[in-house]
Amino acid sequence: MTLAKRSLVTIDDLSTGEIEGVFSLADEMLESTAKQSAVCRGKIMASLFFEPSTRTRLSFEAAMHRLGGSVISAVDIGVTSLAKGESIADMARVVGSYADIIVIRHPWEGAAKVVADYAGVPVVNAGDGGHQHPTQTLCDLYTIRKERGAIRGLKIALWGDLKYGRTIHSLIFALAKFGANILFYSSPGLEVPEHVIQKLIKEYGGELGKYQASDHTAKNNLFPLDAIYMTPDSPHQLAMVPDISFQVELKAGVDALYVTRPQKERFAADGEELKGKYPVVDEKVLKGKAFKKTLIMHPLPRVDELAYEVDADPRSMYFKQAAWGVPVRMALLALLLGSKKGSLSEEPDSSIHKIDYPAYEQDSGVRCPNPRCVSVQETEMRYIKPAFKIVDRVPLTLRCVYCEHGFEPEYVASSEWHHGGLENKKYHRADSHWTKEIKSENLIVFSSRSEAETRGFKPDHSVETGHSGKTGKEEK
Amino acid sequence: MTLAKRSLVTIDDLSTGEIEGVFSLADEMLESTAKQSAVCRGKIMASLFFEPSTRTRLSFEAAMHRLGGSVISAVDIGVTSLAKGESIADMARVVGSYADIIVIRHPWEGAAKVVADYAGVPVVNAGDGGHQHPTQTLCDLYTIRKERGAIRGLKIALWGDLKYGRTIHSLIFALAKFGANILFYSSPGLEVPEHVIQKLIKEYGGELGKYQASDHTAKNNLFPLDAIYMTPDSPHQLAMVPDISFQVELKAGVDALYVTRPQKERFAADGEELKGKYPVVDEKVLKGKAFKKTLIMHPLPRVDELAYEVDADPRSMYFKQAAWGVPVRMALLALLLGSKKGSLSEEPDSSIHKIDYPAYEQDSGVRCPNPRCVSVQETEMRYIKPAFKIVDRVPLTLRCVYCEHGFEPEYVASSEWHHGGLENKKYHRADSHWTKEIKSENLIVFSSRSEAETRGFKPDHSVETGHSGKTGKEEK
Amino acid sequence: MTLAKRSLVTIDDLSTGEIEGVFSLADEMLESTAKQSAVCRGKIMASLFFEPSTRTRLSFEAAMHRLGGSVISAVDIGVTSLAKGESIADMARVVGSYADIIVIRHPWEGAAKVVADYAGVPVVNAGDGGHQHPTQTLCDLYTIRKERGAIRGLKIALWGDLKYGRTIHSLIFALAKFGANILFYSSPGLEVPEHVIQKLIKEYGGELGKYQASDHTAKNNLFPLDAIYMTPDSPHQLAMVPDISFQVELKAGVDALYVTRPQKERFAADGEELKGKYPVVDEKVLKGKAFKKTLIMHPLPRVDELAYEVDADPRSMYFKQAAWGVPVRMALLALLLGSKKGSLSEEPDSSIHKIDYPAYEQDSGVRCPNPRCVSVQETEMRYIKPAFKIVDRVPLTLRCVYCEHGFEPEYVASSEWHHGGLENKKYHRADSHWTKEIKSENLIVFSSRSEAETRGFKPDHSVETGHSGKTGKEEK
Repeated sequence: MTLAKRSLVTIDDLSTGEIEGVFSLADEMLESTAKQSAVCRGKIMASLFFEPSTRTRLSFEAAMHRLGGSVISAVDIGVTSLAKGESIADMARVVGSYADIIVIRHPWEGAAKVVADYAGVPVVNAGDGGHQHPTQTLCDLYTIRKERGAIRGLKIALWGDLKYGRTIHSLIFALAKFGANILFYSSPGLEVPEHVIQKLIKEYGGELGKYQASDHTAKNNLFPLDAIYMTPDSPHQLAMVPDISFQVELKAGVDALYVTRPQKERFAADGEELKGKYPVVDEKVLKGKAFKKTLIMHPLPRVDELAYEVDADPRSMYFKQAAWGVPVRMALLALLLGSKKGSLSEEPDSSIHKIDYPAYEQDSGVRCPNPRCVSVQETEMRYIKPAFKIVDRVPLTLRCVYCEHGFEPEYVASSEWHHGGLENKKYHRADSHWTKEIKSENLIVFSSRSEAETRGFKPDHSVETGHSGKTGKEEK
Repeated sequence: MTLAKRSLVTIDDLSTGEIEGVFSLADEMLESTAKQSAVCRGKIMASLFFEPSTRTRLSFEAAMHRLGGSVISAVDIGVTSLAKGESIADMARVVGSYADIIVIRHPWEGAAKVVADYAGVPVVNAGDGGHQHPTQTLCDLYTIRKERGAIRGLKIALWGDLKYGRTIHSLIFALAKFGANILFYSSPGLEVPEHVIQKLIKEYGGELGKYQASDHTAKNNLFPLDAIYMTPDSPHQLAMVPDISFQVELKAGVDALYVTRPQKERFAADGEELKGKYPVVDEKVLKGKAFKKTLIMHPLPRVDELAYEVDADPRSMYFKQAAWGVPVRMALLALLLGSKKGSLSEEPDSSIHKIDYPAYEQDSGVRCPNPRCVSVQETEMRYIKPAFKIVDRVPLTLRCVYCEHGFEPEYVASSEWHHGGLENKKYHRADSHWTKEIKSENLIVFSSRSEAETRGFKPDHSVETGHSGKTGKEEK
Repeated sequence: MTLAKRSLVTIDDLSTGEIEGVFSLADEMLESTAKQSAVCRGKIMASLFFEPSTRTRLSFEAAMHRLGGSVISAVDIGVTSLAKGESIADMARVVGSYADIIVIRHPWEGAAKVVADYAGVPVVNAGDGGHQHPTQTLCDLYTIRKERGAIRGLKIALWGDLKYGRTIHSLIFALAKFGANILFYSSPGLEVPEHVIQKLIKEYGGELGKYQASDHTAKNNLFPLDAIYMTPDSPHQLAMVPDISFQVELKAGVDALYVTRPQKERFAADGEELKGKYPVVDEKVLKGKAFKKTLIMHPLPRVDELAYEVDADPRSMYFKQAAWGVPVRMALLALLLGSKKGSLSEEPDSSIHKIDYPAYEQDSGVRCPNPRCVSVQETEMRYIKPAFKIVDRVPLTLRCVYCEHGFEPEYVASSEWHHGGLENKKYHRADSHWTKEIKSENLIVFSSRSEAETRGFKPDHSVETGHSGKTGKEEK
């Protein structure tokens, strides 16, 4: 297995087998850290942090140094040359000609993909806004695998703010991919977003059941267990398992409890507040039978949601999680730089549906509606062409290839009609029957009437009457 | 001698013999800097600077590179993840799992001790607020020793702002420990604080005489010589030396003149101003007979207190002081990392009193009154338990183990009484006779009446009448 | 050839032969980058950036790492110890005792010279305000030479803002030194400053012709060709070439087109605005016959002046220019550190006039009038003595040795008169006949009457009557 010259922008850039390969090498790195100091000798890693993140940056830099490589780094770069109006692509090309690999953190969603597209060297996403932070997910998975031997079939509980927090959604998909079951203990109002749920079921298979908070959990000062995801491999599918029996199953023990802090800075941006209290995970909570042998995990930094008294508990894993970030990143860097070859896991790939969505590449004026997407920033629009995947027809849903944000455009048209020319050039409501009839390669979408009419399309009857009353909505 | 796995938080963490060992190794490092590039190969030093300090940081980083080690560094970290409410202890644990040694500068007094307590790797204090900066003191001592052969018995003059300035107090104690005599030329209003004087006499022995400024010095545009500390080893004790004879002694020459800049930013914080002028040390001042062979020292940066014309004078030592910071730090890092073993000096340890003060560990609600102490910061109070040493009974004085700030609590009680139970649960004024009668292990202190009464103690007669009229005062 | 222990403050610090030597070594570095990792092993480079510049800093740091050396760096240092009032000279001395070479960027013009004067180790200027950025010029020249084999006799077009922009003036002088012809396509109002033109003709020989914009160029959305510099070696001198024939010559092709961005931040500082539009260099512009085989160059970062569509054009050189910054800087660092010896080019030195201007070192109170000059900053005036070169007599012009800013002092006097004493101690208008009669070693200048009279000089008749009506002007 070679990952040489590859980039890691989202966790989906690696198959489960490749991730296992990274983990095997991480095991080796962990066992003999001191012996790795010639692996990347002479190589340079550039760490470009457009947002502060001491922990992640130092972990990557320590990993590179342990491999004998060198580091050039730029921190808080927002204020420098990029402020002169330089694009990310130009910066990526230039730094790509200085260094052998780039690690980037940037507030714009999709920025890491742009860097990977232009740098000419491997790129690792160390967090791009609210989009992805794949090496955090690798560290999380590695910790579970290392402590439990494997991930398949485990019961992993996620605790707290499951709405915001870039790491939690990546983790959900990654756990599903590895065949774990997931228990959602959400803070009220901070449940997993619907689009994550939809993607989970559609792309990873399995079933999801939603629950009402039981009195039992409320009494114990716990967040309510509001949903359960059962992997398709699971011996008892949800439909066959009444609530009561699952409670029994739960008592057999949760394998890991992944605690998150409330992302207050993101609530504020959305004009929201924390509803109700955010119970602290402490020794009392962990006395529950379900948590007897549970790994207590946290991506850190913590604030108040995880009591200091848990630190001394042998179940606490969060400092190991952080520490193991170094061997995991050592393995990743060595593989992407081609300094090491990995061994492919023998384990067959999981049963997830690899869906190859059709591309939308018409230049119809539609732009990603996510204001934090890299593709809509003034400096980047000079060279980035919008690009989407058509992920659903009902409702018609496009997903930006940069930030992976989904949205529902309001109007459609076809570039070709009934094997003939585009004679009448009409456009239609996206929720009309026309949408299903247009082939993907001919589909044109518009987000407004003026967008359509500027390009010379005329409204059909449904548009004029506003008949089905639906308006385009953002998925996320 | 091995210092492996030890930390250097205060200069007292090293005995004089150990310091001599560091200096011997520094001599070796200085003579053959280029040959040291394999000493710490494969080791990582983290430099964490929560306050800017280009000079100190670069000196440590240069030292680590000269030893062949690697550096990961975070500068101006106030604005990053710690702003999310993370504690210093969590940060220390995480970074301690990335690096082999940590160098920390932090504005909170006692912060370096907390890092050392939690990091799991050796920690070097590169300045914690107004508390300590021990490697600066090592560089100062090394310069004197290197130029004069030894420190014992020398006459060292301290010049200028002896009140503020973190390095000067450490230097005073270190000089005393090594058996030097100290001459205090203070800027009026910026004399050495009383608590430093008290500690000097009590813990290091020797005698201190205070002086009135003589006309002679005033005429020469010098600061007045306002106090002299004579080491216990000194052949002529102060009591035996009338002023006039000391003047003669002085004319025999001062060994070093340590110039400090007025710490204006600290005056301002205290709402003070510089009283009178701050005479510049220039060639004219140095024409004095007493300074004929004197080493002119300064911790740098200088502003106006030391004229540029002195730079060319062979007596000027300040650039050497800075340059020698590298070999001194090389020696220290190599020893703490266990990459080198030091040779113990044969010289017998000095005659200072090693006092083992009793610990105060009652949880009576008393907190360190120093607002810059790490133990009273909101993020740190979640896990730091206040801890003190009982350093005096009359007046009752506690010293915080974190910031080493001393203070006099106002009330006392006993957890056990006359070998009986704690029946009447009375509390007393700290300046009453009761204080002396309570055993250290039973002593409970309170800083206010409400603190005592919250815990169920009742005032005795002296408290009620307020009879001795004294109130608790801070030592510093 | 050895450059060991030398500094590079301005491009004039290197002869053309030495530059060729740097380039030969850069070729070697480029061909076998991976084999250079022992060249500077054990050496430390300090990069001190008082202004942000991610690109330049990372390029230097990458170069040092490729050579196997170590880096200590301080970024955005404005806010740290230097804010305490420390001088650049003190900082230079201290850092010079930590590192083996210093790379400095500083907003004050002439700052790099001060660092070089005091550091005790080689210093490379990475940009000192609007003064110089010599390694950028080296990269520009290297790109032309590498792509065209040599520089002598080429036609190099400069495009856009030729007034501001620190790199463009250095580039003009360097191109002249290497015997290139220069075409000036200036944005109206942003023409090359007169003092640059004057220096070009006087110090580098050759001829300069000025042009009116032809209709032809205006039609093509080009900047007007407003001046041409012909190197003295050029076969057809301008005087002999009528306009029309040069147009023919031009059609034979421009060798390189050097595009610059409008330095908006500097206009603003001067209270100016961009007059007219700034045409974008795009594929349409490059369709012109003159540009058929032209190297398209840009120092980066670009904003809008150079279209992204050009990136895919094989003529585009700007990313190579940036990439080759690493081997060029590797060569330079290795030579200055004495880790490599260069081979001197056999090519005879160009025909430029090496002028040795007389020094002005009288202490007459005259200071450089450039407010950004290092020599007039409060912290630096404590030790920097003003020093100038007398570069012209009519009008009398002095050039500051720090920032190389020229100016015309208003009054003159002589320290010695007609082989006699200085009896009458008169001072004169600088534009009077007296100026020419005073020997350089006796010349005293004043910038105001009070400056002269403070020193005991009395006005002569011309001063009293104000007869020739001219006032002192700044050259730049």
